[in-house]
Amino acid sequence: MSVYTVVGDEALANWLSRYHLGSLVESRGIAAGITNTNYFVTTTRGRFVLTLFEDLQLEELPYYLNLMSHLARHGVACPAPIADDSDRFVSLLEGKPACLVTCLEGADITHPSPLQCRKVGEMLAALHKAGSTYPARMDNPRGPSWWSRVSTTLYGYLDADEAASLRAELRFQESQRFLHLPAGVIHADLFRDNVLMKGDDIAGFIDFYYACNDVLLYDVAIAVNDWARRDDGTIDDDLASAFLAGYQSSRPLSSGEIEAWPAMLRAAALRFWVSRLQDYHEPSPGAMTYTKDPGVFRRLAEAHRGRTSFWL
Amino acid sequence: MSVYTVVGDEALANWLSRYHLGSLVESRGIAAGITNTNYFVTTTRGRFVLTLFEDLQLEELPYYLNLMSHLARHGVACPAPIADDSDRFVSLLEGKPACLVTCLEGADITHPSPLQCRKVGEMLAALHKAGSTYPARMDNPRGPSWWSRVSTTLYGYLDADEAASLRAELRFQESQRFLHLPAGVIHADLFRDNVLMKGDDIAGFIDFYYACNDVLLYDVAIAVNDWARRDDGTIDDDLASAFLAGYQSSRPLSSGEIEAWPAMLRAAALRFWVSRLQDYHEPSPGAMTYTKDPGVFRRLAEAHRGRTSFWL
Repeated sequence: MSVYTVVGDEALANWLSRYHLGSLVESRGIAAGITNTNYFVTTTRGRFVLTLFEDLQLEELPYYLNLMSHLARHGVACPAPIADDSDRFVSLLEGKPACLVTCLEGADITHPSPLQCRKVGEMLAALHKAGSTYPARMDNPRGPSWWSRVSTTLYGYLDADEAASLRAELRFQESQRFLHLPAGVIHADLFRDNVLMKGDDIAGFIDFYYACNDVLLYDVAIAVNDWARRDDGTIDDDLASAFLAGYQSSRPLSSGEIEAWPAMLRAAALRFWVSRLQDYHEPSPGAMTYTKDPGVFRRLAEAHRGRTSFWL
Repeated sequence: MSVYTVVGDEALANWLSRYHLGSLVESRGIAAGITNTNYFVTTTRGRFVLTLFEDLQLEELPYYLNLMSHLARHGVACPAPIADDSDRFVSLLEGKPACLVTCLEGADITHPSPLQCRKVGEMLAALHKAGSTYPARMDNPRGPSWWSRVSTTLYGYLDADEAASLRAELRFQESQRFLHLPAGVIHADLFRDNVLMKGDDIAGFIDFYYACNDVLLYDVAIAVNDWARRDDGTIDDDLASAFLAGYQSSRPLSSGEIEAWPAMLRAAALRFWVSRLQDYHEPSPGAMTYTKDPGVFRRLAEAHRGRTSFWL
């Protein structure tokens, strides 16, 4: 499913000779991920994950790869990029920017326990704290100005009810100010399918290609909106509480963050409501047809409006 | 055996709070290693190795720890140091410089197979190649000027036979010139007890605290002198050949290196003959009494003199 670029063994073996990883044993395409091409690559030294970037450009990648390297160096569970003989993490393969990272054990889970939510919360706090010494910066390309701009093109596709609801949500967010809250490096897409677990332990956070600099609490809200969400779309109080308790065991929220939390949950729901509407109504040419339901995040945003208790 | 400095749980928990590794679960002293204090430290995030340096100073450590980090980043199997919240690998604990590194699985082996020797040779070549982009420099403190100087103080302890043999060996080395050979980062102490193996795979090279910049072939000779040495002190041709074949599969020796190889084997034997004589006859005050037999390397140096075939 996610092998857009086919990598021949000869090209791969030749590219691998820039690394200090022995020689190629085998490579196998990975049928997961939506945006990039991924392979398991086994060399005489072990198993690695090869990613070919289908959209991101060579010059955009150092932010993400240096960040993963920085986080791994600080003990945050995530794949560590491997440097080649020129000390680079990325170079062209089959005409695409490509990198190798360490291969983590574990698998993603669809129905986490409170303990697992707690551990993900703890690790997210570790990411936020370790990110504070990461020197590079990347603005969030999916922030308020993005969702406002994209929404104007979406209303035409929506029925009157959904359009009114989306408009109300955007208006509400325009009245909010988050810029005084603690900011730093955020993962920005820490859904269940971006965390590999081994039992109750976190093998690693993956897919850092939406990471950016933004308000830390926004990252917490994105994660809670997914980790605590039941199959029926409602939030499980126990899972949300456990996630937040884990997070706060390492990084307690400030009073300003606690005050902003209800609105932040809605902002995080709005962001995915809008992006899923865009993927649904205006798919980019050549994109995979694996489109996710925008209604999940509409219903979540609407449920957050009426919520009176927020697990803090 | 190797816990010179006792680390209390409270001091450790406090020191650990500088890291993004969760909270302390337990610590346990490691009864291996001669120079430093080592603990297994388990946190809510996993298991790490804590080292307190008994001799090395805070300002000497970045060379070694940045090197390990550089090598790990290039896929060389070795422990990766963990950075703290100030982005440092080392800081004081109980008044000693201390660091945390990832905990490798595996154990050292006393009787390697040819396949295992081959793999160690391959990985040593990977270390030498990956080291070529490491920017820091450290002269070898155990080079020719060191062994010449130390030997003058040792003759008084030796019987006439050994003194004559040592003098002859030193004179031979004075006639050799190795400075034209490829140089770079070397481990300088890659004995069997400094490699953790998991079956036939290398879990990691450890104990980089003799690493320095020197002639690469010297590192190969130090390793072959140990990995191919039988219990009776003689060299096993199959093990030596396998080690060298593994090394050359990744980094073929130049004609200059092949020419220098017989003399280099003697230089590597001489270095440990001298250091073990020094440990035996002039132990530093307060040192452990776990002194190794200098005769092993005397006999090896003498055997190399008469050797006619060198496994290349």
